[in-house]
Amino acid sequence: MRGKQFLIDCGEGTQIRLRQMKITNTRLGHVFISHLHGDHCFGLIGLISSFGMLNRTADLHIHAQPDLERLLTPLIQYFCAESPFRIVFHPVDPARHALVYEDRTVSVHSIPLRHRVPTCGYLFEEKPRERHIVREMTDFYRVPVAWMRRIKQGEDFVTDEGEVVPNDRLTTPPTPPKRFAYCSDTAYKEDIVPLIQGVDCLYHEATFAESEAARAVKTLHSTARQAAEIARRAGVKKLIVGHYSARYSDQQTILDEARAVFPGVVLGEDMKTYEF
Amino acid sequence: MRGKQFLIDCGEGTQIRLRQMKITNTRLGHVFISHLHGDHCFGLIGLISSFGMLNRTADLHIHAQPDLERLLTPLIQYFCAESPFRIVFHPVDPARHALVYEDRTVSVHSIPLRHRVPTCGYLFEEKPRERHIVREMTDFYRVPVAWMRRIKQGEDFVTDEGEVVPNDRLTTPPTPPKRFAYCSDTAYKEDIVPLIQGVDCLYHEATFAESEAARAVKTLHSTARQAAEIARRAGVKKLIVGHYSARYSDQQTILDEARAVFPGVVLGEDMKTYEF
Repeated sequence: MRGKQFLIDCGEGTQIRLRQMKITNTRLGHVFISHLHGDHCFGLIGLISSFGMLNRTADLHIHAQPDLERLLTPLIQYFCAESPFRIVFHPVDPARHALVYEDRTVSVHSIPLRHRVPTCGYLFEEKPRERHIVREMTDFYRVPVAWMRRIKQGEDFVTDEGEVVPNDRLTTPPTPPKRFAYCSDTAYKEDIVPLIQGVDCLYHEATFAESEAARAVKTLHSTARQAAEIARRAGVKKLIVGHYSARYSDQQTILDEARAVFPGVVLGEDMKTYEF
Repeated sequence: MRGKQFLIDCGEGTQIRLRQMKITNTRLGHVFISHLHGDHCFGLIGLISSFGMLNRTADLHIHAQPDLERLLTPLIQYFCAESPFRIVFHPVDPARHALVYEDRTVSVHSIPLRHRVPTCGYLFEEKPRERHIVREMTDFYRVPVAWMRRIKQGEDFVTDEGEVVPNDRLTTPPTPPKRFAYCSDTAYKEDIVPLIQGVDCLYHEATFAESEAARAVKTLHSTARQAAEIARRAGVKKLIVGHYSARYSDQQTILDEARAVFPGVVLGEDMKTYEF
């Protein structure tokens, strides 16, 4: 997002997948962990260890429930003592919807979820972009280069003669900022809908088909229909489902059941890239 | 070996490979860890965690340098609190050649190696098998069933009339016990040769080709030629090399250089089964 790479969760084997997908470690600065179950964090120590051996020097920031720092620190000290970069832990309270990361162009908020251990999703939002200059119009009005930044930010142009040229004659609206929400693992939780309203892309877990609805309730996971129901209510543009129970040898039922509620659903697949 | 499964080292992703190879967890009772570098032990917590979710009940024994217990226990307590089986750690002193495991049919000894951290290999040995009964001869001498176990163990048969039938008329020699040695990671270390003399199969690391011999010295790894030299001096029947540096896109040079010294070498490959 905006030239930066973010990693959400880090199950065992993540570093191997990153290597297979030729994703280099150098731009990956921030990792966001949803909850402390093994399939969401057991890959961290390997990732950190390998980054060290690849002579990474940039800090690596890990946003997670505070227990992770306590658990991981002894391993980092033992296995990565010679690592040439720093690990910076940022505690996240999974029970709160709060800003957890922000830079010049992107912000990330936590999304409280409901699972067997404290869990939160993450909402990634681009900040508003600048307006697009209409070159012919700025040429026509002889807008000096010094004015361009202010014009992009929406200011009207005032000529040396004091004539005011309204901004919308010089620019077109900015590209709308993109928003992505990641919600896993969680039971059906309707109160996340306002937090993710209208996002361009929602990843929502869909561990079970409807036939296992009772098991979904018991294990605090969602069915495909429930994931789609969240997407429908939130009016998202695209839904990616994933985190399928190993009992399903294929995901056709998951897809069919979700599609019946929300047609804009696709199956999340390993190693696949999704653009939005 | 003798109907038991042993796991030697457990890098990240081991549980995924076991699943892909349809190796079930139920017969795997003992894990032997050579040293505490991530590529040899980061997969343990995931393996233990998944065994718990698969409702394993049998104890899992882990033989390793004592630091591992201290490092892994907090993770096991946090992530596998509801695990229905016990983890039993058995401390191994990598500096000593000693018996680390023994049952009715198999023994395992440590093999001190030389690496950047305390490291040992493991020698797996079948115990002597029983002699093979020659059915026609035991029928001829009307050997009662009650005698059979003693005959298999080499005793002469004494008839009711007091006649002694020498054992070698009733049996043929037992199948020779198999021996397997695992040596990784290690610099060239000639004093392991007597410990692994004549083994049926030796796995020896061959991280580098000769062109990186200086790097092998520096990082305390072996070249392919050195691995083959150990195999040749120990008169092993078969050598499997592995643990190749990521710098080699294929292992032809490794194979060629080892084969020049020890023709009975094969390349270790992921997911491949080797019989001996």
